[in-house]
Amino acid sequence: MAGEELTLLGLWASPFVIRVRIAFNLKGLTAYVYSEESIYHKSELLLKSNPVLKKVPVLLHDGKTICESQIILQYVDEAFPTAAGAPVLPSDPYDRAIARFWASYVDDKLFSAWLPVFIGKTAEERVEAATQVLATLDTLEQAFEECSKGKAFFAGDTVGLVDVVLGSFLGWLYATEAICGVKVVDATRTPLLAAWAERFCALDAAKGLIPDVERLVEYNKARRVFLGLPLLP
Amino acid sequence: MAGEELTLLGLWASPFVIRVRIAFNLKGLTAYVYSEESIYHKSELLLKSNPVLKKVPVLLHDGKTICESQIILQYVDEAFPTAAGAPVLPSDPYDRAIARFWASYVDDKLFSAWLPVFIGKTAEERVEAATQVLATLDTLEQAFEECSKGKAFFAGDTVGLVDVVLGSFLGWLYATEAICGVKVVDATRTPLLAAWAERFCALDAAKGLIPDVERLVEYNKARRVFLGLPLLP
Repeated sequence: MAGEELTLLGLWASPFVIRVRIAFNLKGLTAYVYSEESIYHKSELLLKSNPVLKKVPVLLHDGKTICESQIILQYVDEAFPTAAGAPVLPSDPYDRAIARFWASYVDDKLFSAWLPVFIGKTAEERVEAATQVLATLDTLEQAFEECSKGKAFFAGDTVGLVDVVLGSFLGWLYATEAICGVKVVDATRTPLLAAWAERFCALDAAKGLIPDVERLVEYNKARRVFLGLPLLP
Repeated sequence: MAGEELTLLGLWASPFVIRVRIAFNLKGLTAYVYSEESIYHKSELLLKSNPVLKKVPVLLHDGKTICESQIILQYVDEAFPTAAGAPVLPSDPYDRAIARFWASYVDDKLFSAWLPVFIGKTAEERVEAATQVLATLDTLEQAFEECSKGKAFFAGDTVGLVDVVLGSFLGWLYATEAICGVKVVDATRTPLLAAWAERFCALDAAKGLIPDVERLVEYNKARRVFLGLPLLP
């Protein structure tokens, strides 16, 4: 890190940003500038840095620009191989493929299923989305059993890619009950995941980064007003 | 490769399968078993190997199962570091991040935009999709200019991840005109991409793998019947 400039453009409520910040903590890359974007006016720097997607997170590293959270996570592993913390990805090619598979599953299936909880117009739409989320979490419960092999995290004894990618989403998963009445992190239905979630949130690397439910619900309300969506009951 | 068993479950028309086969050719990994799936009845082996997504391609390597085309491409780089051909991903962390960004863009934006050309119910829907495809190809034209730096391929003098990921899609892009009347690989609108597409299709590694337009149009018709969609005019 000596002499290297590292800036992260982010948004406190974004799971995609949170996962990068947790990974930085895990790797001991703490000497970076964090720049909070406004959800109402994207900065010139963001628009210039990520002109294609216009989204956070964006990592600026010594004049280079890296976009997309999972790409940033892999970049950080590869660009800082001597960082104090463990790599987010394992070293074995097959273990890497499995980690990438489940990390993609979280973004492609869980996040897509969950999105209507956030932007659904009707209570029915939100509840239906939460029901889909439960189905993806059932699959992730099985994945946890297979990947963790009885240990604390998806990656085993330490935290890895799937932990960080899914863990960054826990604030919103906990908030789902307050938004639409469906508890999705449910110790009865998915006991392994529920216990893992508690362990993940208690990590030093996650402290202060996974937002409280109340704050997320307020954020959701504000976004609904901004997007012209019906308010929550 | 000596003593290693490699089987690919695929489908001739799938860009996601084609890219893996082209990458195998590029790397000189030609001693693998290719097993063609039926689009009408998924095999027991496919359902058992990829129970979560139930999709090709699936790579079986010495008892291990790897799913999802871009994950397979990275796996092949990492599991066969001494293969005769060049790695699909570059070695520099930043170059890798850029390649991953554009490869994701192809699957997330171009493929999503294009899908209604294949399954759109009305001519209007198909034409609107093709118009969206043109917009993503405009972006990829710029990406080609930035990435290739005046050379033949996205990766420079040799073929890399973005070439393989976008190139595997060329059969369907060429077929788009026959399906909905909109030419999307257009030397007037995106001259760099159009010339790159010709170079890519002429590669030895791509020979016989990018299907003819006529065969793809017939496949689309058959899929429409199977899916209960209105037939093409």
